[in-house]
Amino acid sequence: MRRFGQTIRLRPEVVAEYKRIHVKIWPEIEDAIRESGIRNYSIYLKDGIMFAYMEYHGPDDEFEARMEALSNAPRMQEWWEITKAMQIPLDTRADGEWWADMEEVFHQE
Amino acid sequence: MRRFGQTIRLRPEVVAEYKRIHVKIWPEIEDAIRESGIRNYSIYLKDGIMFAYMEYHGPDDEFEARMEALSNAPRMQEWWEITKAMQIPLDTRADGEWWADMEEVFHQE
Repeated sequence: MRRFGQTIRLRPEVVAEYKRIHVKIWPEIEDAIRESGIRNYSIYLKDGIMFAYMEYHGPDDEFEARMEALSNAPRMQEWWEITKAMQIPLDTRADGEWWADMEEVFHQE
Repeated sequence: MRRFGQTIRLRPEVVAEYKRIHVKIWPEIEDAIRESGIRNYSIYLKDGIMFAYMEYHGPDDEFEARMEALSNAPRMQEWWEITKAMQIPLDTRADGEWWADMEEVFHQE
């Protein structure tokens, strides 16, 4: 299993709307996330900074292919077009990232 | 089960030391966390901002008592004295908080 922590900023003027669309995300997106092997996926917000925690429970050697399939899932690009307009990515994110991967500095089962 | 997302800042000059002491935390602290019912506890770092994700798997009606017991566990105050000196809490944290609780805006099992 792989764990991920990621961060991004949220535009202050869309906080209510971002929360509203995440109360019940589109069924196509929910299904695509599930089929990708992502589990226990949470997004937290404080002072305009968001933190995502998620786990990948699929086969290790299928991770890249499943993430590629997730990005090509029905309505995913449409979903990202909406949500990306609400987010402010970190200047320090790595090439190819939108949400910036964070470094795990501690873990206890 | 209860999930928590929390955030705090880390003093830039102690990043290496903070990571070092968290590679293998004191056995007393590890034991106390386990006995409290906290599971799946991760801390992530990016650009001086830390996020903690953890789950409480103990009985719901024992949560407050177990967190109180955790704060009184052997060496816990000593551990917090060390780590608090390395952290910068958010001005917007709630009364009584050190790490600031974040709002969960999304969760998918």
